[in-house]
Amino acid sequence: MYKKILQDIKDEIEPLFEQGQVANYIPALANVNPNKFAMSVYLLDGSYYGIGDIEDKFSIQSISKVFTFTQSMGIYGEELHKRLGLEPSGNPFNSLIRLENEDGIPRNPFINSGAIVLADMLVSKYKKSASDEILKYIKNVSDNDDILYNEAVYKSEKVSGYRNYALVNMMKSFKNIKNHTADVMSTYFKHCSIEMNTKELSRSMLFLANHGIDPITNKKFLTSSQSKRVSAVMLTCGHYDASGDFAFRVGLPGKSGVGGGIVAIIPGKMSVCVYSPKLNSKGNSLIGTKALELFTTKTGLSIF
Amino acid sequence: MYKKILQDIKDEIEPLFEQGQVANYIPALANVNPNKFAMSVYLLDGSYYGIGDIEDKFSIQSISKVFTFTQSMGIYGEELHKRLGLEPSGNPFNSLIRLENEDGIPRNPFINSGAIVLADMLVSKYKKSASDEILKYIKNVSDNDDILYNEAVYKSEKVSGYRNYALVNMMKSFKNIKNHTADVMSTYFKHCSIEMNTKELSRSMLFLANHGIDPITNKKFLTSSQSKRVSAVMLTCGHYDASGDFAFRVGLPGKSGVGGGIVAIIPGKMSVCVYSPKLNSKGNSLIGTKALELFTTKTGLSIF
Amino acid sequence: MYKKILQDIKDEIEPLFEQGQVANYIPALANVNPNKFAMSVYLLDGSYYGIGDIEDKFSIQSISKVFTFTQSMGIYGEELHKRLGLEPSGNPFNSLIRLENEDGIPRNPFINSGAIVLADMLVSKYKKSASDEILKYIKNVSDNDDILYNEAVYKSEKVSGYRNYALVNMMKSFKNIKNHTADVMSTYFKHCSIEMNTKELSRSMLFLANHGIDPITNKKFLTSSQSKRVSAVMLTCGHYDASGDFAFRVGLPGKSGVGGGIVAIIPGKMSVCVYSPKLNSKGNSLIGTKALELFTTKTGLSIF
Amino acid sequence: MYKKILQDIKDEIEPLFEQGQVANYIPALANVNPNKFAMSVYLLDGSYYGIGDIEDKFSIQSISKVFTFTQSMGIYGEELHKRLGLEPSGNPFNSLIRLENEDGIPRNPFINSGAIVLADMLVSKYKKSASDEILKYIKNVSDNDDILYNEAVYKSEKVSGYRNYALVNMMKSFKNIKNHTADVMSTYFKHCSIEMNTKELSRSMLFLANHGIDPITNKKFLTSSQSKRVSAVMLTCGHYDASGDFAFRVGLPGKSGVGGGIVAIIPGKMSVCVYSPKLNSKGNSLIGTKALELFTTKTGLSIF
Repeated sequence: MYKKILQDIKDEIEPLFEQGQVANYIPALANVNPNKFAMSVYLLDGSYYGIGDIEDKFSIQSISKVFTFTQSMGIYGEELHKRLGLEPSGNPFNSLIRLENEDGIPRNPFINSGAIVLADMLVSKYKKSASDEILKYIKNVSDNDDILYNEAVYKSEKVSGYRNYALVNMMKSFKNIKNHTADVMSTYFKHCSIEMNTKELSRSMLFLANHGIDPITNKKFLTSSQSKRVSAVMLTCGHYDASGDFAFRVGLPGKSGVGGGIVAIIPGKMSVCVYSPKLNSKGNSLIGTKALELFTTKTGLSIF
Repeated sequence: MYKKILQDIKDEIEPLFEQGQVANYIPALANVNPNKFAMSVYLLDGSYYGIGDIEDKFSIQSISKVFTFTQSMGIYGEELHKRLGLEPSGNPFNSLIRLENEDGIPRNPFINSGAIVLADMLVSKYKKSASDEILKYIKNVSDNDDILYNEAVYKSEKVSGYRNYALVNMMKSFKNIKNHTADVMSTYFKHCSIEMNTKELSRSMLFLANHGIDPITNKKFLTSSQSKRVSAVMLTCGHYDASGDFAFRVGLPGKSGVGGGIVAIIPGKMSVCVYSPKLNSKGNSLIGTKALELFTTKTGLSIF
Repeated sequence: MYKKILQDIKDEIEPLFEQGQVANYIPALANVNPNKFAMSVYLLDGSYYGIGDIEDKFSIQSISKVFTFTQSMGIYGEELHKRLGLEPSGNPFNSLIRLENEDGIPRNPFINSGAIVLADMLVSKYKKSASDEILKYIKNVSDNDDILYNEAVYKSEKVSGYRNYALVNMMKSFKNIKNHTADVMSTYFKHCSIEMNTKELSRSMLFLANHGIDPITNKKFLTSSQSKRVSAVMLTCGHYDASGDFAFRVGLPGKSGVGGGIVAIIPGKMSVCVYSPKLNSKGNSLIGTKALELFTTKTGLSIF
Repeated sequence: MYKKILQDIKDEIEPLFEQGQVANYIPALANVNPNKFAMSVYLLDGSYYGIGDIEDKFSIQSISKVFTFTQSMGIYGEELHKRLGLEPSGNPFNSLIRLENEDGIPRNPFINSGAIVLADMLVSKYKKSASDEILKYIKNVSDNDDILYNEAVYKSEKVSGYRNYALVNMMKSFKNIKNHTADVMSTYFKHCSIEMNTKELSRSMLFLANHGIDPITNKKFLTSSQSKRVSAVMLTCGHYDASGDFAFRVGLPGKSGVGGGIVAIIPGKMSVCVYSPKLNSKGNSLIGTKALELFTTKTGLSIF
């Protein structure tokens, strides 16, 4: 059944390939093939369905924030919320406006400022090995050793990520960054530059669809309650200021990245990942969003 | 089972009655007994469980926005979205700030400005009988003829609702209000002044837990897709700038009113309503939120 | 000398008549002849120079705020500043944004919200005769009985001034309006609809160029200190969010109106008024601003 | 006459020494003697009057922005305004909010972001010797070789000026900074750390009181028109979001620094400088502002 559904989706999204814009703020991202498309479905019982360029690795970018959020939650628990909120911001992902009026406390972990605070918390915990520990964690939840970050993307963001430097300095001025801004930003840019394909990403999120426990390895990463809460934040904040629209159209907790990937969770059932590098005006994969909308329509799966 | 759970919840929330503040912006709301508590659970099969002051009617206030939203969606469908958005606003329920920068288009139907646009659309459709038609619709989805608005609350809001008059005039200046502001506001204040009890409210929302169809009368109010979408908006926007927190703690689509009521939907299963008039700093029932959090914890029910 | 300067200015601004837009938000203003031009110079010794359509009356609009500000200052003195500030707002004249974050206290008396607070204070003082008393005051400072408000402009603004109704209701919700909003707005719209010509307006402001005392009638309207302060507020706030630009180019305290008039004060020397109905993007007379810039350049008069 | 006036002012401000707060964001500023007071008056004819600690050098901080503004204006003329505005911002001196909504173009040269753009323009012009050229310019307008920057203050701001790093990175993301952010910030922090006393500062601004020409050395730094314009910007923007209040109370173009200094210009007559390190809530010298208010009251000097 899923095989046919994926094929139908692929056929239906074909005419949309003209639309959207590949992210162009760094050359390493601008050079991808704009017509790539992949979609992967991983069920809790371990069965897997994929279509398109499912072996092609791409820059996961902001999807990595799900990993640092769950990793930090595992370490810090509720204490996390002293340093970042859980509310949709209603502003673009890189906005500084609310920070200035809200004492440098980011609205949620999925806007850039929030993820930078998470990076700071992981640097506080792991010092110089923070980046290594993040990668190790991602390999662990993915049950996959073949995950790397892309040096060119990392360096490119490091030299040109002015808006993110503005964010970290703003929060530092409010004392909501505890470590050296350079160390925090290296860690942040590094995890954003990690590359994975849709098969790997759908695999990596299975624990969020299964109460915090990987259904295949049985490793426990979060409590059931924490896992539910991560999903709730993905639903309300996972797509920046298009989160409401995504919830409205797709009806699933999800997280997008500017590299063109989107992962979505169907609690108790499966994890889905889609990839297509052209973005809509809000910075989310245009075709990816459409494909997920078709997927929930065709399968009748939704949390609502 | 639900009987015991409701009793346990009631026992556990007892110590919280000291906290919070009854809404005091109009006398009619300030005079309620602050220690009232009621909780009702209505299952799709028609079975019902309740505890506390379940017969006591209270002012449903913003919960009425769910009714005008579904009623307008039934009439206007997707066209609705030309005049209001679907995104969490990240601002208080009565904020004018975004309106000024976003051409008078409200962020979503559940902040005051959004609901005022809905009232305007219903006035465009039903002219002078808009208020009657809204009440008729609510009676219809509730399968209950014994629903009235409270004249004193209505009049009180009409003479003192300055912030709401500011909102409607602001949107009128952007031509996003088509009728006379006085007619629109009468309609808006009237549906906010409707009184219902938790039993009636939980009954009235059953169609949203059942793909748009009342499971008892079999009347169809929305398509399955529309019903899902209403739930999505309730989840992302139902509690103003505490919507993320509610999703995080409770994990259900819900809508609160400043009168102290909250309704929540468990898709495919039931509708729950709780009432307690003391509010937290965001204007949502303090004990009501806690009771729903306990309910999802104890039952394990959540959409995530 | 002034005769020649005025003639030179008229010649130089000729090529600019193609530019700008007549105010069109009410029909009564949109119907004026866009090519009108008048400029009047009134010296403290009573000598007068004029060029162009100096007998043509036009809608003084926001210039009337100078009169209600000085009238209120005469009545309330420093107490005024409990209810409105003295700072440039940095926002458009009709913005509600700061009001929401600053407890309904307008930034200064020359943005709409500030002038509406002044109208409220004058209604508190004069009740039903507030409009009459304002007109009487203007006749008094002008030493001229032939000043009227325009009924058509007044009514037009009264039925369509939604943004101003939004402002008054917003401030009323913060309790910074003490009287009925309808009474306040009638008073406000009435004084905005007053009609005067450049000769009359330049005459009316002479007391501000002479330490608060009319140099011809010797009537005292303000103390020397109050008169200086009014000029300071005109300089920093007299042209909305183009006040800095006006100070930079013209270098005189001034006040513009959307009807196309601008008055400027040269302390200790004279009062100047210019009229041309086409406006720049900030809502100030395009040619009027240019004419005043030329006037200060040619005469070498400036406060700096 | 001025001697007696200065003595009277000193007596009258005595009781205020309890109020206000010394700037404490860097240790080098926090360690000053809070009871210092000095006031200097320099007339165009070269006569000088001073009282108090007139030989004590202090950190001129933001007063240095007047020098970089006039220096840049001399180099770039009107072209300057492509990269920064001339309007009061209505926001605190270090706010990022408007930058985000206005494409990284600062409102005016006297808020931090504006002065950072000026530093960038001077780095574009002078490359590595920008700091030297700024110091040379200040010595030149001051006719004084004994002016130095304070290494400790400079280093202290360089390691802790997070908010300023946020500003420069924000503007860099909008491409309104052309050089390396580190070079720009070194230049900016260096000129802010310059130390002068009130005698030197009052001397240094004489050219602005004399149409751009130093009345003693006869060196020309600005055209008459440019000089007027600098004064206009000082009046409307010289005291951040207290500029209107300063214009209202003092009625002179002026510029304050967080080190406790304020300079003011009386066009055609003199330059005045006052120093007292305790600040009011807006970051301007509390006693300095009061002393200047007394000065204009006692002398009757004002531009209005």
